[in-house]
Amino acid sequence: MSSYQELEEHFRGIADFEHAQSILGWDEASMMPMGGGESRARAMAAIAVLVHQRKTESKLSDLLAGAAEEELDVWQQANLREITREVELATCLPADFVEQQSRACARSEQAWRELRAANDWEGMLPLLTEVVTLAREEGAIRSEASGLGRYDALLDQFEPGVLSAEVDAQFSNLRSFLPGFLNEVLEHQASKSLLSLGDHFSVESQRTLGLEMMSVLGFDFDHGRLDISHHPFCGGVPDDVRITTRYNEDNFLESLMGVIHETGHAIYEQGLPDGWRDQPVGKALGAAEHESQSLLMEMQACRSREFVTFLAPIARRILAGDNYDESAWSVENLYRHYTRVRRGLIRVDADEVTYPLHVILRYDIEKPLIEGKIEVTDIPGLWAEKMQSFLGLDVEGDYRDGCMQDVHWMCGLFGYFPTYSLGAMMAAQLFTTAKKDRSGVMGELEQGDFSGLLGWLRQHVHGKGSLLSAPGMLQAATGSTLDADYYIKHLQQRYLAE
Amino acid sequence: MSSYQELEEHFRGIADFEHAQSILGWDEASMMPMGGGESRARAMAAIAVLVHQRKTESKLSDLLAGAAEEELDVWQQANLREITREVELATCLPADFVEQQSRACARSEQAWRELRAANDWEGMLPLLTEVVTLAREEGAIRSEASGLGRYDALLDQFEPGVLSAEVDAQFSNLRSFLPGFLNEVLEHQASKSLLSLGDHFSVESQRTLGLEMMSVLGFDFDHGRLDISHHPFCGGVPDDVRITTRYNEDNFLESLMGVIHETGHAIYEQGLPDGWRDQPVGKALGAAEHESQSLLMEMQACRSREFVTFLAPIARRILAGDNYDESAWSVENLYRHYTRVRRGLIRVDADEVTYPLHVILRYDIEKPLIEGKIEVTDIPGLWAEKMQSFLGLDVEGDYRDGCMQDVHWMCGLFGYFPTYSLGAMMAAQLFTTAKKDRSGVMGELEQGDFSGLLGWLRQHVHGKGSLLSAPGMLQAATGSTLDADYYIKHLQQRYLAE
Repeated sequence: MSSYQELEEHFRGIADFEHAQSILGWDEASMMPMGGGESRARAMAAIAVLVHQRKTESKLSDLLAGAAEEELDVWQQANLREITREVELATCLPADFVEQQSRACARSEQAWRELRAANDWEGMLPLLTEVVTLAREEGAIRSEASGLGRYDALLDQFEPGVLSAEVDAQFSNLRSFLPGFLNEVLEHQASKSLLSLGDHFSVESQRTLGLEMMSVLGFDFDHGRLDISHHPFCGGVPDDVRITTRYNEDNFLESLMGVIHETGHAIYEQGLPDGWRDQPVGKALGAAEHESQSLLMEMQACRSREFVTFLAPIARRILAGDNYDESAWSVENLYRHYTRVRRGLIRVDADEVTYPLHVILRYDIEKPLIEGKIEVTDIPGLWAEKMQSFLGLDVEGDYRDGCMQDVHWMCGLFGYFPTYSLGAMMAAQLFTTAKKDRSGVMGELEQGDFSGLLGWLRQHVHGKGSLLSAPGMLQAATGSTLDADYYIKHLQQRYLAE
Repeated sequence: MSSYQELEEHFRGIADFEHAQSILGWDEASMMPMGGGESRARAMAAIAVLVHQRKTESKLSDLLAGAAEEELDVWQQANLREITREVELATCLPADFVEQQSRACARSEQAWRELRAANDWEGMLPLLTEVVTLAREEGAIRSEASGLGRYDALLDQFEPGVLSAEVDAQFSNLRSFLPGFLNEVLEHQASKSLLSLGDHFSVESQRTLGLEMMSVLGFDFDHGRLDISHHPFCGGVPDDVRITTRYNEDNFLESLMGVIHETGHAIYEQGLPDGWRDQPVGKALGAAEHESQSLLMEMQACRSREFVTFLAPIARRILAGDNYDESAWSVENLYRHYTRVRRGLIRVDADEVTYPLHVILRYDIEKPLIEGKIEVTDIPGLWAEKMQSFLGLDVEGDYRDGCMQDVHWMCGLFGYFPTYSLGAMMAAQLFTTAKKDRSGVMGELEQGDFSGLLGWLRQHVHGKGSLLSAPGMLQAATGSTLDADYYIKHLQQRYLAE
């Protein structure tokens, strides 16, 4: 067996345990009763340790060196690149550091649930400080190994090949555009009234509608399912993708677009290259590309007037009783609901105009924080200042809905936030290109026909797995590097032109 | 660390992967879409291989020898006994034999699904012959290692410490009693009419009733849940027990008693000793003891007139509409439904009078088959002959509902069938003792109060884990060895005296 073949074999074995991790993780979030938590945590930790051990076995360095000398086709070459990356990410942190960090983060995350509810920043401070200290140390170690800057070394875990200089450039474009644009949009929408769609929608009927839209978008139910969890997510494995949602019986809008969002993630996974699913090259690209697929469905395709034209009568049939208000269930009114822009404190509730401002605010804080230019104690002040200047909102003294609202930093996740908005920009760029390549797409969406769009995505994104680098995929699919202008044009078109 | 402590540590690690196996197995049966099957099979096989490797590591023989010299308390001694047993069961079969056998059994089981439907015994014959050949070989290897007879060596895997000589003695008692008794019961019941309870019961209402009865019996929903699967089972781990049922909308009787049966298994698991759940001594005893707990609930406690008195008005409230037939929903009529005896071809549909005859029939065939005294080609003839003499039914030429009805032999499971009826006898013996030790038990069941019975089971069975041997547990709890007379007296009392 060649060195390369041995590596494939080795990573095929790892994929089996990653399968177990994914399904157990899904189960924990969607099925497991509370009392199962302790023994589940032990089982998950044992599998994580095993996977880490297998990715750091000493024989791997010889195999990697050997494989580098062997003749490989393009997929094998890309697979070797991804295998090398996984080995490097796993080996560069000392085991005792990983353990110390994982304990500090677990402590901080657990405490956060209660401290946030109590608006207790003082209680959070020492815990978060420890987490940040360790994240800085992690940045330093990873920087040492990769040659990247400290923040870039963290970002690179989630979004390989994208540097913060690139993020800076895109975000500076948005930073100067969005606040003024937001004012214009709010003014433009002020005169457009919204009619209530009702205030009770059973879980059963919302689920029916969600499942129907999953089918329309191309979700394959022979390889996946929809369930409920507190925080919606897409999990499982490409052959068996588990997505979740939560239902609010007062309002169906949230869960419906949530299901469409997760379906976007899911069809990316379901479309990964068949022959490579047990290898690193068969995995999806970074977090931004994954988010681009969910946002392409949720924001680009399914909030379009064309799709809402298709959706409105189906939603009415499933959700409204026999006596419904025709104007409330009109395409125009549903479209207004789905494109309404509001200033708000909470990132996860934000619309596509204000969302990037929430992300940029966090990026502007976490980058200097990791670089040691600011301290944890500076966070609330900076947060309030930026919330005022970006969104015109006063959050002074409100930590709960201010800097304590997200779990990310509390559990040690730094370098992740930018991927949300990189994904949104990528979604606009990909969708614009798909419409250009395939001029009938919007007409098809109006008929509920996603096959053309899905085919385009399969060809240019899903079916490629990690064959190309993340920037390489975007370049090949759209003919240009990441460009915030696609996103800006999309916003102008949807929120001001109509 | 002492040798014993190292063994504990080692088996604690194994328990984490067994946790993953249990939950993934439950998921496969109750949640997984068909298309996820292949990659799941690979992941499950990888974990099974890992668990097998860890149970056969070469360092274990030294540790076992070392621990045998150390000073241990009674729980540790029992744990060492169980660890030794697990190591021996895992090490005695050569790895290539296990692989050959698992492939032959998988092939045979898969083919059986279609061959059974087609009543195709000729098609089954070569596949089953291969499986039997390998099972005989397994018996020989295990016999070599354990010193037990070939059939006993297979039986011992499921029911440690019980020999076929013991089974012969108990079964011969039943074999001479049951056929005549069955005739008497059928005559006794012939004059008692049954009133229909209705013919449509929604899944939702059946589930509500099932969940309510699980609570009544003492199922802890913080450590378990109820779902749906094609074949009902009890899975998961002691901290998170997953039971399943299936619903027939024409008839609620089956699912209700099915849920109660699985709840019996579940509360055994939930009651296993807290401090030992990650060790072999903390596991349940053999298959017969597990079945005794499910049958104690299903057959002994919950088909009693006292429990049916409690159940009838609740079932009526949940299942019947506002206009119900008072006599149909009377305690007497529901009790008649739950104690009706019928001759039938199918084991899994059998009542508690005829069930042991189905088991004895199989035992009378599989034992000489493994011992090489009969061949696979003899099975249909023997089956028809015994079905005629035990139950007076003609099954000539009907393989589907004859010797091809069960999956057990088709997938290589020999030595398991007797545990069903050993469990039924044990259930009668334990329940009789519990009623003697705690005279108010039947009055409590009439009030839906299971706390007294559960407390007795916790003390004498559940909380002991595998501290005692299986026969030792029964002796300690009831003051005598296994005795079919308890079961016979129970049948006489329930089916003739009233």
